[in-house]
Amino acid sequence: VLPLALIAGPCQMESRAHALETAAAVKESAAKAGIAVVFKASFDKANRTSLSGARGVGLDAALPVFAEIRETLGLPVLTDVHDAGQCAPVAEVVDILQIPAFLCRQTDLLVAAAKTGRIVNVKKGQFLAPWDMANVVAKVTGAGNANVLVTERGASFGYNTLVSDMRALPILARTGAPVIFDATHSVQQPGGQGTSSGGDRAFVPVLARAAVAVGVAGVFIETHPDPDRAPSDGPNMVPLADLEGLLRTLVAFDRLAKHHLAEPDD
Amino acid sequence: VLPLALIAGPCQMESRAHALETAAAVKESAAKAGIAVVFKASFDKANRTSLSGARGVGLDAALPVFAEIRETLGLPVLTDVHDAGQCAPVAEVVDILQIPAFLCRQTDLLVAAAKTGRIVNVKKGQFLAPWDMANVVAKVTGAGNANVLVTERGASFGYNTLVSDMRALPILARTGAPVIFDATHSVQQPGGQGTSSGGDRAFVPVLARAAVAVGVAGVFIETHPDPDRAPSDGPNMVPLADLEGLLRTLVAFDRLAKHHLAEPDD
Amino acid sequence: VLPLALIAGPCQMESRAHALETAAAVKESAAKAGIAVVFKASFDKANRTSLSGARGVGLDAALPVFAEIRETLGLPVLTDVHDAGQCAPVAEVVDILQIPAFLCRQTDLLVAAAKTGRIVNVKKGQFLAPWDMANVVAKVTGAGNANVLVTERGASFGYNTLVSDMRALPILARTGAPVIFDATHSVQQPGGQGTSSGGDRAFVPVLARAAVAVGVAGVFIETHPDPDRAPSDGPNMVPLADLEGLLRTLVAFDRLAKHHLAEPDD
Amino acid sequence: VLPLALIAGPCQMESRAHALETAAAVKESAAKAGIAVVFKASFDKANRTSLSGARGVGLDAALPVFAEIRETLGLPVLTDVHDAGQCAPVAEVVDILQIPAFLCRQTDLLVAAAKTGRIVNVKKGQFLAPWDMANVVAKVTGAGNANVLVTERGASFGYNTLVSDMRALPILARTGAPVIFDATHSVQQPGGQGTSSGGDRAFVPVLARAAVAVGVAGVFIETHPDPDRAPSDGPNMVPLADLEGLLRTLVAFDRLAKHHLAEPDD
Repeated sequence: VLPLALIAGPCQMESRAHALETAAAVKESAAKAGIAVVFKASFDKANRTSLSGARGVGLDAALPVFAEIRETLGLPVLTDVHDAGQCAPVAEVVDILQIPAFLCRQTDLLVAAAKTGRIVNVKKGQFLAPWDMANVVAKVTGAGNANVLVTERGASFGYNTLVSDMRALPILARTGAPVIFDATHSVQQPGGQGTSSGGDRAFVPVLARAAVAVGVAGVFIETHPDPDRAPSDGPNMVPLADLEGLLRTLVAFDRLAKHHLAEPDD
Repeated sequence: VLPLALIAGPCQMESRAHALETAAAVKESAAKAGIAVVFKASFDKANRTSLSGARGVGLDAALPVFAEIRETLGLPVLTDVHDAGQCAPVAEVVDILQIPAFLCRQTDLLVAAAKTGRIVNVKKGQFLAPWDMANVVAKVTGAGNANVLVTERGASFGYNTLVSDMRALPILARTGAPVIFDATHSVQQPGGQGTSSGGDRAFVPVLARAAVAVGVAGVFIETHPDPDRAPSDGPNMVPLADLEGLLRTLVAFDRLAKHHLAEPDD
Repeated sequence: VLPLALIAGPCQMESRAHALETAAAVKESAAKAGIAVVFKASFDKANRTSLSGARGVGLDAALPVFAEIRETLGLPVLTDVHDAGQCAPVAEVVDILQIPAFLCRQTDLLVAAAKTGRIVNVKKGQFLAPWDMANVVAKVTGAGNANVLVTERGASFGYNTLVSDMRALPILARTGAPVIFDATHSVQQPGGQGTSSGGDRAFVPVLARAAVAVGVAGVFIETHPDPDRAPSDGPNMVPLADLEGLLRTLVAFDRLAKHHLAEPDD
Repeated sequence: VLPLALIAGPCQMESRAHALETAAAVKESAAKAGIAVVFKASFDKANRTSLSGARGVGLDAALPVFAEIRETLGLPVLTDVHDAGQCAPVAEVVDILQIPAFLCRQTDLLVAAAKTGRIVNVKKGQFLAPWDMANVVAKVTGAGNANVLVTERGASFGYNTLVSDMRALPILARTGAPVIFDATHSVQQPGGQGTSSGGDRAFVPVLARAAVAVGVAGVFIETHPDPDRAPSDGPNMVPLADLEGLLRTLVAFDRLAKHHLAEPDD
């Protein structure tokens, strides 16, 4: 069993400078905590709650920055794709294509992502049972790509609330795909601020500890130098200054979890 | 207040002959029951549970059939679109572009549909609170198109189950958009048959009566000559032979509902 | 099929004068609307959100008032019981013993209520599936009392929210027991005001219309001369002044619903 | 911060011999794992799904056995009470009175339990938000008893399913009461076997690890020499033979959790 990995970065790429600065800080925090890291940023927030929400720098501006981060910092890069046509160009500069939760059942997008040969990380829809992700994974593997990750990011629980069912983690693992726990969007309150989504970052360490104790391949944590001024998902993002401490805790839990995984009682 | 309208047809366009036959039968049932009808069929089921699920005849084959139904039967036509690029060609032959529930937050798709000038029917995501549809409607009207419909089709309720909250209907009406109740997908059991979604058509009249009694602009009912042999949503579709009787009941409830709407107690 | 019946009254018996005044007003509204009515009031609110919430006049003070209402107004009376020991004395003066939703699985209470020979109305727990009420009904009939009613009053839906699943009504009817729809507590927001439960009485007519259209034996509606000053459930109660209009609407829907029940499409 | 404690025993007291045997085995497993233990057994299952479900030996038979377990094994004892009248006699022989989840809002029961002066463990109702337990705790402390524990045992999530929201643990801790995680009933599928509740004990270690990693005062685990032959909650109970291994794992997680609790990032 491999040790815990980290997918981290800001919700959206706000500018080249912002992305590079955040990537460097994430790299440093992860190195100090002893955890492998993939840099994450979105070039387009295609499903903002409101039409007036900022969407990011866009595909054309983002691709060279992803390439620069890979080259200068040596970090693998993940970004999300929203339609089939984006998959090929994005795959040229990133290591992992991510399928957003709302789009996890869109067959053409899954197949196009699969055909790039890159790793595909599919987020579980808020409307899906964990066992239903077996069909989603099969859409990717059926298109010839065995490199699939699945990410838990909460299930709909009444209105404007998500709940993280920790039983979902071992159920998702039955697909054979490594399981990632998204500790950022799991604490989201969708639509909870009227024209944007709310959240409560105080629960990020709570849910991340729980998931790592259960046993996951990786955690997904959005982070920002100044979350309260971020254009999206600010309420859920962990301040960069707190990231290293959180990672040290999670690494300790991961070691214990993977030591005890081998025991018959689990 | 206008009388109840109907959106009806098979889940997917299986062939030209099947679509024309079903459209003619729907037209006849609706005429006998005294209700205006829009014909609905999907050219592509883009988010089937499983990769091996049949997806329909595709865009190129479907467009001439939609045109033929409009011309020969005189029925307005609705179909759903899955990416921004489909909106313009589809708008040339249909009257209403429908946005699938999973895609109801995809800004580019909403804006592209809006810009065609056609009526846009947005299904409320299973993961959305009814009040959050105000932001979705604003994405369409903000793109210059005031002709928006919103459709209730159930909210996630635990795993593999939806629940229809009848309070959602008046809340959706506050957006100013006419409200449609989708009685077919509201009885769906998402993913409930392992590699396809289940459902229980026995509850279609139950939920449709309830919604019409509360007061809606229209109902959406999928119907098929032989639902148990349909390639998708068979468990939820009403047999064509039962449609007229159901419509007569709903028309009677609608008359009563709209008579009593004006009363102070409502 | 019998026409719709009404169970109505204030949430709690606040005083003899208040109960008599409300009962007389309820009787008059029901008579004008042409609906049979059972008077309801609680002598003890045994499960208030907060310790400081007013609980009502108590068993000893309430029993003579129930007797007086039966005699002077000729109304059947319903009240709720909270432990087995209350069943026998309460049964001497009321027609229907009601089991609160939280207590619907307490075997001793169900059996004690059954053994009085009075009609037993069991509210479905917010935590129960509708099909699970078959076991609850069997606890009463198994104790030798076939006169059982079952009441739908909403299911837990995330935190501090209930949802009314209209499919539950025909499922509950499979128990053989007449089904009541509680339009008051279905709009409750449990615990939603911090130290008391909130609600929104604007949705009472919405849900009541829907339920009556589906087809029920009766509706349960709490009403008060001045709900905003009521000691409990004020946000959910219908002002007495609005009751007659609401009942007229429901009677019209009931007639239509029961006319159409016989049709093959239902 | 105190180390993790354990509440463990069979769901119901089946006989004196069975209770003593199980208590001795629980004591031994806990001692080997280095965890303090309270013995738990119910003398009456007052809310079985079905009337024909076995209810246990009853109050009169159970009290001497509880006394014997305390004296001969030196274990503190917990049992649940179902009405106010049971509290005083039960308090004479047990250390902790437990309030069942369905009854957590019954004021008289809470006050009667409080007045015994014993520790009161209140299970959070499946229908309650975690913040609403502040009112429940206040009912006990308001009656003069500051020794209250609160237990998380899952929240209603659709029909026949519970979900454990790990955010509930720190929210419950804000009441000031020590928080217990019930890993047995959290995996229950209420009513899920038609006339009895189902469950899946494979998830007991999953949820227990998660809760302990978040940080709790104790875990509640039902255990049985042969769960598949137990008269109630068999599907959820951990075989006695597996208990020690599970406890060793939880003790390790607890040590880590409480070491990291002091860090600023949590």
